[in-house]
Parts: sequence; structure tokens; C-alpha cells
Amino acid sequence: MNYPSFFEIAKDFKVIMLDSYGVVKNHKGLIVGIDKTIDWIKSEGKTFRLLTNDASRSQNQQKESLAKLGLPGIELHEIVTSGMMAKQFLEQKITEGRIAYLGTENSAEYILQSGLQHVAVADVDLEDIDDISAFVFLDDEGFDWNTDINKTVNLLRKKTMPVILANSDRFYPVSRNDVAVATGGIAKLVESMLHKKFIHFGKPDSQMFMYAYEGLIEELGEIDKKDILMVGDTLETDILGGNKFGVQTMLVLSGNTREEKVNLNISSSGIIPDFLCKSVVE
Amino acid sequence: MNYPSFFEIAKDFKVIMLDSYGVVKNHKGLIVGIDKTIDWIKSEGKTFRLLTNDASRSQNQQKESLAKLGLPGIELHEIVTSGMMAKQFLEQKITEGRIAYLGTENSAEYILQSGLQHVAVADVDLEDIDDISAFVFLDDEGFDWNTDINKTVNLLRKKTMPVILANSDRFYPVSRNDVAVATGGIAKLVESMLHKKFIHFGKPDSQMFMYAYEGLIEELGEIDKKDILMVGDTLETDILGGNKFGVQTMLVLSGNTREEKVNLNISSSGIIPDFLCKSVVE
Amino acid sequence: MNYPSFFEIAKDFKVIMLDSYGVVKNHKGLIVGIDKTIDWIKSEGKTFRLLTNDASRSQNQQKESLAKLGLPGIELHEIVTSGMMAKQFLEQKITEGRIAYLGTENSAEYILQSGLQHVAVADVDLEDIDDISAFVFLDDEGFDWNTDINKTVNLLRKKTMPVILANSDRFYPVSRNDVAVATGGIAKLVESMLHKKFIHFGKPDSQMFMYAYEGLIEELGEIDKKDILMVGDTLETDILGGNKFGVQTMLVLSGNTREEKVNLNISSSGIIPDFLCKSVVE
Amino acid sequence: MNYPSFFEIAKDFKVIMLDSYGVVKNHKGLIVGIDKTIDWIKSEGKTFRLLTNDASRSQNQQKESLAKLGLPGIELHEIVTSGMMAKQFLEQKITEGRIAYLGTENSAEYILQSGLQHVAVADVDLEDIDDISAFVFLDDEGFDWNTDINKTVNLLRKKTMPVILANSDRFYPVSRNDVAVATGGIAKLVESMLHKKFIHFGKPDSQMFMYAYEGLIEELGEIDKKDILMVGDTLETDILGGNKFGVQTMLVLSGNTREEKVNLNISSSGIIPDFLCKSVVE
Repeated sequence: MNYPSFFEIAKDFKVIMLDSYGVVKNHKGLIVGIDKTIDWIKSEGKTFRLLTNDASRSQNQQKESLAKLGLPGIELHEIVTSGMMAKQFLEQKITEGRIAYLGTENSAEYILQSGLQHVAVADVDLEDIDDISAFVFLDDEGFDWNTDINKTVNLLRKKTMPVILANSDRFYPVSRNDVAVATGGIAKLVESMLHKKFIHFGKPDSQMFMYAYEGLIEELGEIDKKDILMVGDTLETDILGGNKFGVQTMLVLSGNTREEKVNLNISSSGIIPDFLCKSVVE
Repeated sequence: MNYPSFFEIAKDFKVIMLDSYGVVKNHKGLIVGIDKTIDWIKSEGKTFRLLTNDASRSQNQQKESLAKLGLPGIELHEIVTSGMMAKQFLEQKITEGRIAYLGTENSAEYILQSGLQHVAVADVDLEDIDDISAFVFLDDEGFDWNTDINKTVNLLRKKTMPVILANSDRFYPVSRNDVAVATGGIAKLVESMLHKKFIHFGKPDSQMFMYAYEGLIEELGEIDKKDILMVGDTLETDILGGNKFGVQTMLVLSGNTREEKVNLNISSSGIIPDFLCKSVVE
Repeated sequence: MNYPSFFEIAKDFKVIMLDSYGVVKNHKGLIVGIDKTIDWIKSEGKTFRLLTNDASRSQNQQKESLAKLGLPGIELHEIVTSGMMAKQFLEQKITEGRIAYLGTENSAEYILQSGLQHVAVADVDLEDIDDISAFVFLDDEGFDWNTDINKTVNLLRKKTMPVILANSDRFYPVSRNDVAVATGGIAKLVESMLHKKFIHFGKPDSQMFMYAYEGLIEELGEIDKKDILMVGDTLETDILGGNKFGVQTMLVLSGNTREEKVNLNISSSGIIPDFLCKSVVE
Repeated sequence: MNYPSFFEIAKDFKVIMLDSYGVVKNHKGLIVGIDKTIDWIKSEGKTFRLLTNDASRSQNQQKESLAKLGLPGIELHEIVTSGMMAKQFLEQKITEGRIAYLGTENSAEYILQSGLQHVAVADVDLEDIDDISAFVFLDDEGFDWNTDINKTVNLLRKKTMPVILANSDRFYPVSRNDVAVATGGIAKLVESMLHKKFIHFGKPDSQMFMYAYEGLIEELGEIDKKDILMVGDTLETDILGGNKFGVQTMLVLSGNTREEKVNLNISSSGIIPDFLCKSVVE
């Protein structure tokens, strides 16, 4: 099948928002040619934003990670992550006690830097939890699955507290064909055991779009939503979120959604992108 | 048990957001004394907003309905409804074809006034649906349940289109003890038959809060989220939404949440309000 | 694609169990040629059973209904319905009070003939429910959807009691392309409003298979499960139930499962029939 | 509150079926006094059965494990496990290829002894899976959670096959207050990632009750279901299963269900035991 060129469509928009995984990079590294696409966006005077549900890195780490992969030109203010939303929530709502987490020390440093103490669930003493005031699911690594998932379940059975999920993706690709359980999958397991719903951040929730939109208004003054294009590889997050927020949406086939299933996926989900392209590099 | 007075807590905030059903009114009419509370909010120089998941009335109709009940002082710009979010979505994303709906002609007039034609599902000819471009669940009345719910299912099996739910509440109180299935319950039934997720608007989604927040900035200039109090009677919508958006939250016991179950509800849901009061009138 | 003949496969089995809707009949009446298939089964000395999730008719009514359609040769003891399982449950477990129901007087007569009084939900006085001891979802007709579904919700909110669902199918076909919400869909709506799980009867539960199996042993003496073939048109009920019970299973394409989707349905459900045929008449 | 004595009620029944975990034993070992209860059952001439969802041990191992704990008198034919149901399924339906599993070599030996080869998922080569014909979730140990759960997900994404869950409990108690994720919880995680439903065995499914019932008929000749008492500590498995099968049911408070929550649990689940006792030893 023939798909229109990304550039042909993107040229009519003032703001281009790209999802990261599956659009800008994949399990092998950068999508080949993405540097030229970013250059084109900027040389055309368009405004660029990266909207990612990746919560495991700070804005700085995202920037450095992309630079290391070979994409040096992304600026801090162009990056919006679901981790930033979770961080904001914690700063605004959790004002005392210690915050327990499942994940790496590294993510904890970034998300939990609100002045409160944080403690890996592995280091929690289940007999001494009175001052634990919130729990955050951060990454799928940095802990021992068997013991620490069990410990998480027991901590949350013993004490009611806000439980935050900074990235609700259930799995992520590790190679062309294989996936790995992501932190959202682990959280789902714990939710199903406790019969609770945790507080989820990230697309398709409107919050990240709003955050980006407010930044755009500060930078550009008024901006019409019709002038914004959101590009993603996943119907349920990027496209649903963009549709709901009211911007134009483009689904690309360089990530989660396979060409041979795209029509079935659209019709079975009822989530309809405004545009459909192979990738953002052609 | 003793609860603090609403006024004692509210006096420290600059903006007071109230949910409507269960806070301002209930099945019998206005909560007794609500007029004095609204007067107090305004006389203290605080800014007021009504945030309601009721999608069946336009802002104007909401205003008139409250006036008729005995609360004349609410102004148009103080009202934010989930129907406004759905309306906005339809205007921005559905630009051609006819919009089919389940509900009253009255709601349809209000939500679907984007220049496109709208058609009650009862009047849809299932052999002639090529130009139907979206479907909206509006109310739980204005149609014949048996025939029109079945017709909705068959329409949506025949054609993929965006399906919008302007109010996801599954039921609403009709007396002190009784409830009725709301449009969100009917949509849930159809979702379960089609194995699809529709596009939901309303609290706890951040969108209504953002919409209100943007209006506040226009009206007041900068406003700190810490100066905003959201008051509601439902943990899963008002309090979760407010918590996630980052404002302070107060649960009141004048509606959905009963005093004898409030602690159980909080601990089983993990959704924790910052304040707990009997109502906004004491 | 070429499918093997039903007869070619069935000839190696001693017992043939057929699902009713989608195998023996459809919305237009009997599947053309089904009379010859039934004749063949019996003339070959095989034992026949009809296993249906239809709970709205008694064995007698099922027999008469098939005779009226043109299939007079089915005997009472060859019919096993999910209604019989529900009836048995009520007889064994509900020994006092009145049984309330949603459905037709006709089904109520059949299922609730245990000596206890039964009362249509429309006739229940919600102020006088102390002696109501169970609730049964019977059919999708015989009541006013809007008022009686709401009344059901309120009855079940007011009093805890066993709630029985004699047929959990969520919809049934009314024409080649259209479906109607079945009683299982209505029960699902009520379950989702009350956050409860009702007691479901019918395939894929092992109970109907066991009931049939016990009858077979009485009739035939010992019978090896490997000599039994279950034929159905639905993976999730007929095939899953048969697989789990340990008999051989055949999926036919004359009902719910369409030829163009059969491979997708099998691979997405993981429910694998032992045989796949077009229908039982070729 | 006062509860009737187990003996007072049990004396009127001919057959006593006990769940194992929470009724006969708990995390500390045997329930104190259980030996006297079993002696009483037998000395009164009643027939005894143990019905357990534990699939990790063979009948022999169950018997030995109970003997080691101090309960030597349980005979092989008195033990019915969900693992036996899964084993039967595999023998009847999976006749070729290799069976992959998640769990211990020990459980695999027991459940998969049908002559087919079995292979731990850790030892599966994902490039060489053509002959893998089924997958079984056996235990929550015997493997590396992180790597082997991911490997399970990828195996099941690559190939459609029957997936069997011999024990659907999501967690089990490890101390008075703490629980651990059970194999059913892990399977649930994988189900949610693959959007599939696996084949579950164990209570509340009727199959184990039927199996036990058939054995009773062989042993005793005719037996009326009204003469059978099923005793368990869990509403959703023991009591629902027993109710549905048509025997009398007793909930005891020595395991999963706590005294202070029992009324809430019954009313919120709608699953109503015929009797309620503290334990089977008083």
C-alpha cells in the first residue's frame, strides 16, 4: 500500500509532537534518518516537542541519552515525560513522610527529589511503615522481582496510601519480535491482587498534552490546536490522547503497530488517526 | 464523629471548585443552605467554579436549572461541564458526515451544534450509514431502551467510528436509597458487547480541571494550584481528578459517599482526600 | 479452503453432542439438512445429545419448538439446557421465600417450579422485600427495560441474595448481520453497577457436560470420553467447555464464527478445536 | 459473636469435604486439633474428602506432606486436587509435541507424566518452538521471575497453543499478615499482556466437585447432594463452587476470611454459605 510522506503532511503544521519509542528510536537505536527529520522540522521554523511515557529518565538524562544515540539537537524544554507529571503530583500532594518505590535508585533520584526521603521497597521494614506516605512504581529493574513484588503487595495491604504509576505501558519491545514486561505490567499484577486502581500518569491522559500546550503558549503566544500534529506509533496512547485533546494525529508504522494489522487495530479499537504514514523519515 | 467546618477550611483558599450533584444539589433539589455558602464564597472575594459531569444540559440550561431550583447567582463562566469537553472534541475532530446519538433531542441540540447534522439512533437507517461519522452517548432517556440500545450495538458493529461518552457515571441517585442506570452504564454494556473502549469525557480526567484552570488564569492572572480547593462527593471522580491535577481536595458526605462507609471507601480505593467534611453548608 | 466432511469425522465417535443455535438452527429456522444429519446419527447407532445455553424454554418446550421448526425426532432425554442447571441449583439451595426474576412469566414457570413463589421484578414492592430469597435473570423480554432494569439494580442494592444467571450469552443473532442484547448482557450491566459477580450457569462450565455424561453412563454403561464429540459454533463456550471436560471438539462455521475470522479467533483466544468443519450437514 | 460448633452441624451429614489451606492447615502447619476432627469424621462413619486447589504436589506428595505435618490418616483416594484436573486435561487433549512449563521440575514430573516430553521455559529455545504443543503454569518458584516470565510472554506471543493454569489462586498466605504472589497471579499478568484467557482448573469450577462426587458414588452407591457438606475458608472458590454444585456449604474463619469482615464479604459478593463456623476444630 502507498502511504503519504510524513513531510507532505507535516509541512502544514506549526507544531510537531513526536512520541519517542517507535517513532524516534527503537530497540536498535535511533530510527535511521531521524536526525534529518528533526533538522527539517527546526529549519522550517516549526516548533518541536517529544512526548514520552518513559518515566525512568529525567529530562536531562533523556537529552543525554538521545545525544549519545546520535541525536544531539534536542533541548530540555522540548522534552515532556510522564515522569514529570508524576514528579509534579508528588511535589504538590505528598508533603511529609517517606516515599517507597519499586525501581532503580536512578529513577528515584529524579522523580522523588522533592525534599522527602525515599526508600527502595527492598529496604522497607514492614514492621516500621507508619511514616511511609506514598508508593511509586518506577521501573522494571533495579530490584529482585520475586521478593520485591511480594514485598510491595504486603506493604500496600498493610497501609493505605497513594500509589503512583509513572508509566502505564505493560510491556516494551526488546527486539524486532520480543517484548519484556514493563513496570505498568507489574503494577497491573499488584492492582489485580489488591483490587485497587492506582494513579496512572502518561498518555492517553490529557495532562501531558496540556503541559506541552501551556509551554507552547508561553513560547509562541496563542496557538490553535488545529496547527498541532501529534505523531505516535500506538493507538491507545498517542492517538487516543491526541484525538481527545483536540489536535491532529498521525499514526506511524515504525513501532508497535504493524502494517498488516493496522486496519484491524483501528477498526477494533475505534481510535482513528487523522493521518497514517510509514514513519517520520520518509 | 466530628468533622471540621467547610468554612474553616475553605477560608484559606482563593478558588473554590464544587461538584454539582451531591454537593450543591441532590434528588430533592438544592442542598439546604447552599445559597448562603455560595454567597459566602463570593463575598469573601473567592473565585467560584462548578465542575459537573452532567452532560445533558448546556451551560445556559445548567444556569437556568439552578436558578429555578433557587440558586440564581451562578454565572455562565463559572460552569464547566463534561458535555463542553465532548462538544469541543466533536468540533475539533469531526468535520464531516452526520453524528448519531442516543439520548434526548435537547442534549443533541446543545452538544452537536457544530454545523453537522445529527440523527437519533432510532431514526438511523442501518442500510444507509456511510455518512455517519461519529456516535455520542448523551442521556439515559429520550429513546426506547430495548430497541434503541440494540440498534446502537448493530450500528457500531457495522461501522468503525469514534464513539463519545460525555458522562461516564454509571448510575445516579433518584431518591435517598434508589439509583437509576445512567448513560455511562448503558455505554459500558455496549462496550462489553463490542469489546471496545469508547472515548470518555469528564472527571477524573484532567481535561475539565485544565479547562477551568485556564479560565482562572485568564480571570485572575497567575494562580497557584495550592490555592485551589476542589470539593466533591465521589472519590473516583472528584477527588482522584483533583489529586491528580494537583489541587487540594475535600470529600463531603452529602452525596454518593456515606458516613459509615467513608473510611472503608478511602482505604479500599487508595484515593485520599486532603480534607473530609459533612457538607459545604456546615 | 477445503474442510473435511462432518460425517467423515463423526463416524468414528459413539456419542455426538451438538450445540443448538448456530449448529442445528439459526435466525431463519433449522439449518437446511439438519434432519438428515440427526437421522444419520441415530441410524448409525450413535447416541445424540443437544447441549444448549438457551434457558428460556423447558425441555418440553425445546422439544416442541424443534418439532414445530421441522425436527420432530428429538427426545426429551436428549436435551440438556443451562436452564436445567439453574433450576437444579434453585431447588437444592433456595428452600424458602419468594424468588424474584427478570424475564417472561413463561420461563419463570419452567425454571422456578420448585414450590416456591416467584414474582416478576416489576411486581416487587421495594418496601417489602424481606422474604425475597433469590433473584434470577431469565430472558431479555417480558418486561420494560428502562424501569425494570433500574428496579432490579435497586432491589439488589437493598438486599444481599444469590443472583442466578441461567444463560450468560451477552447477545444473540437476529438476522444474518444483526444481534440483540441477551439476558447475559443485561446481567453484565447490573454486575458492573453493583461490583458483584453473579452465579452463571451454562457452557463453558463443566456442569452441563457432567450432567450429560452421567446420563450417558446410565444409558450406555461405561463410556470413554475419547468416544464423545462435542460440536459447536462458539470457541468460548462449546469448544472451551468440551476441551476442558476432556472430550473431542469440532468447531463449525454455520453460526457465530465466520470463516474469514476463524484462524484469527483461534489464535487470539488460544482455544483450539480438534476438528474444523463447515457445518454438520456437509 | 457466637458461632455454632462445627460438630453440631457436621453430625447431620454423610460426607464431609474440607478445603486444605485455611481449614486443615495454615502457614504455621496443621490447625491445632485437626487430627481429632478427622478422627471424629471417620469414627462417626462419615466419608471424608480433601478438595484443594494446590496443584504443586501429587496426591502422594499431598498425603506425605500432611503425614509429615502430623496428619497421617489421610488416604490417597480421599484427596482431590486441581492439579489432577489439569493432568487429566493434558492426557486427554495433548497427544503430541513437548509441553513447556513455568514452575518446578517436581510439579512438572507429577502433572506432565503423560509420556510427552516437558521442558522448563528457561530451557526453551525461542527459535525452535514448532513442536511445543501446550504451556502450563505450575508454581511460583523453580524459575527466575524476571527472565522466565518475559520468556513465557514471548513464547506465547510467537505460537498459539493451549495454556493451562492448574491453580488460579492469585496469592497465598505466608504468615499471619503477609501473602505471596501465587502462580495464578503470574498467569493473570501474562493474560493481561496477551489479552487472552487461559484454561483455568480448580474450585469454583464444578469439575473437582464432580470428580469427587463420582468417586463417592463408586464408594457409597447413590448419595444425595443434600448429605454432602463442603467446608472452606474462601467464598469465591469453596463456597461458590459448593453452592453451584448443589451441596451444603460452610464458611470457616480460620483462613482467608476474617471475622470482622465476614458479613461485608458475604454481602458484597452475594455468595452465601449455608453455615458459618469459627473453624472445624471447635
